[in-house]
Amino acid sequence: MRIQDIGERELISIIHRLQARPPMGYIGIGDDAAFIPPNSRGILISQDMLVENLHFRGDWMTPEQLGEKAVAVNVSDIAAMGGTPLALLTSLSVPGPLDVDWVESLYRGIAKALDRYGVVLIGGDTVGSQDRITLDVTVLGEPGPSGPILKTGARPGDRLFVSGRLGASYAGFMLLSHGTTWPSTVVAERSVLMAHITPIARVKVGQQLGTWAHALTDISDGLVAELEEITRFGRIGAVIFEDRLPIDAATKVIAERFASDPTHFALYGGEDYELLAAIPPSRVAEVQEIEARTGVVMTEIGVITETPGIRMAPSEGEAEHVIQGKIYNHFPVA
Amino acid sequence: MRIQDIGERELISIIHRLQARPPMGYIGIGDDAAFIPPNSRGILISQDMLVENLHFRGDWMTPEQLGEKAVAVNVSDIAAMGGTPLALLTSLSVPGPLDVDWVESLYRGIAKALDRYGVVLIGGDTVGSQDRITLDVTVLGEPGPSGPILKTGARPGDRLFVSGRLGASYAGFMLLSHGTTWPSTVVAERSVLMAHITPIARVKVGQQLGTWAHALTDISDGLVAELEEITRFGRIGAVIFEDRLPIDAATKVIAERFASDPTHFALYGGEDYELLAAIPPSRVAEVQEIEARTGVVMTEIGVITETPGIRMAPSEGEAEHVIQGKIYNHFPVA
Repeated sequence: MRIQDIGERELISIIHRLQARPPMGYIGIGDDAAFIPPNSRGILISQDMLVENLHFRGDWMTPEQLGEKAVAVNVSDIAAMGGTPLALLTSLSVPGPLDVDWVESLYRGIAKALDRYGVVLIGGDTVGSQDRITLDVTVLGEPGPSGPILKTGARPGDRLFVSGRLGASYAGFMLLSHGTTWPSTVVAERSVLMAHITPIARVKVGQQLGTWAHALTDISDGLVAELEEITRFGRIGAVIFEDRLPIDAATKVIAERFASDPTHFALYGGEDYELLAAIPPSRVAEVQEIEARTGVVMTEIGVITETPGIRMAPSEGEAEHVIQGKIYNHFPVA
Repeated sequence: MRIQDIGERELISIIHRLQARPPMGYIGIGDDAAFIPPNSRGILISQDMLVENLHFRGDWMTPEQLGEKAVAVNVSDIAAMGGTPLALLTSLSVPGPLDVDWVESLYRGIAKALDRYGVVLIGGDTVGSQDRITLDVTVLGEPGPSGPILKTGARPGDRLFVSGRLGASYAGFMLLSHGTTWPSTVVAERSVLMAHITPIARVKVGQQLGTWAHALTDISDGLVAELEEITRFGRIGAVIFEDRLPIDAATKVIAERFASDPTHFALYGGEDYELLAAIPPSRVAEVQEIEARTGVVMTEIGVITETPGIRMAPSEGEAEHVIQGKIYNHFPVA
């Protein structure tokens, strides 16, 4: 069955049936607007658009995986403010001849990810398209008790922490770009493919970091680019200790296969969706406890400095050299 | 200058510069997520996606007009809940070779419309596209003191009111479909072209209707289709009095030119973005006062009945016949 054969209302019913019911007091799909009841902390909102063949490829991931990823990358923006995600809206533009099963699978993946984060789908839009698929997701959340944690606010002497492992998403991207597809039977390949295809947003880690962090963001455009963001205001810089970068074994295996330096994957590779926080030195012990509470590795990778610019040293106290972020440009296609 | 020559960050700066600064306590463009401080009434959210050559055509409207319209159709969803719009997010997907001026004009139109409604741009996304332009807009607002006014809730005996004039947007669409472009020098043409190209959201009318309405919605898919929505639950129907339909002279002139019945434009034409309310009979006098307070014509066009289905009578009390909404299907292109 093609989408153009069933029309918008039936498509919305299908989407609706796959989703959990919003909590009491919410208004979900079906009226002119959705509604979230008052809360005492205000509302965080983020919006991310994914375009076929630019942000995702149909031969690289299933529609279910795309749904999971679209939720995760948006929820990650709420985690990056130290907040709790509450509700999601999706706008989907699809060609009429597309099979209805494709949309069902997409929303099955969305439902799966929403259940993981305790978030509900409350609205959006479903429209036609002449060729490509475009998926735009809006997520709403509430900040933690200290309010939203901004990118700015880091101070010289703050210690830099990242959650999880870096570079794996880029290693997965390299594999996909060279013809390896999901699922692979090779353990290292599966590990980095999963990191790229179905990243996990660090909501619990973000909530806990939010208690102590001077600055917090998620690593969507690469570690160095995010450090440039964090140090953009306030005449500060940062030093990364190369020996502390948390690069896992699978990422090293894949980087070696492409005769690449896995450190470059960790510094410049996009889409890790791990969190990066600037923590006052007096709170370092508390942050190290997050690992025990959440099961997510927390690594101290550097320090905020009075000297502007981003530098790297082989290890803490050794000679530093300046490095520059390769800002991911969203217009690579002509 | 083409978009692909300047990159995403510079494009965001351009967009940012054209917009009013968000009020104190808000977090706008630039961090991982935007933020709206707590309010006592909760948050309304709506999202609408516009796709080039499907929802808009570059040869029918300027990018500035597109920006104005995109804001209006989203704000209209907040008006349709009796609410007040507060903030907007935009996701824009544009081909790299597109001129930067196009995006500047779009956001100049968005800024113009936002100023009209007292709304601020607080975030969104800007990404590439391989060919077409896609614009997805999310609007946030707060409900009135009685809370969100739903589509459902109408009761038999409620009187049906619409704001403004019906059918003009469709008359404008007919002109554009047949080669007449904006601006025309013919008064009737200008009037209906404006109704289609730059509709106005009825925020003040919605706030006032919200005080008394049992049910409220905006007319985006045609009057009959919206009446079907309002009467979908609760075993009720509606009768329209044909002689009461507020069709303006310009719409009649254009309909006549196409040998069409202007009543059909008013009943089935989409995109009027007027409000439709079910009002308890005891409050009819108050609703008639809205016209004096807002300058927007308010017309009593029918009544909610115990008999299901939508019917029309030449005038109140005369013989009725059943009419059916031609639900606008978003997948007309193969």
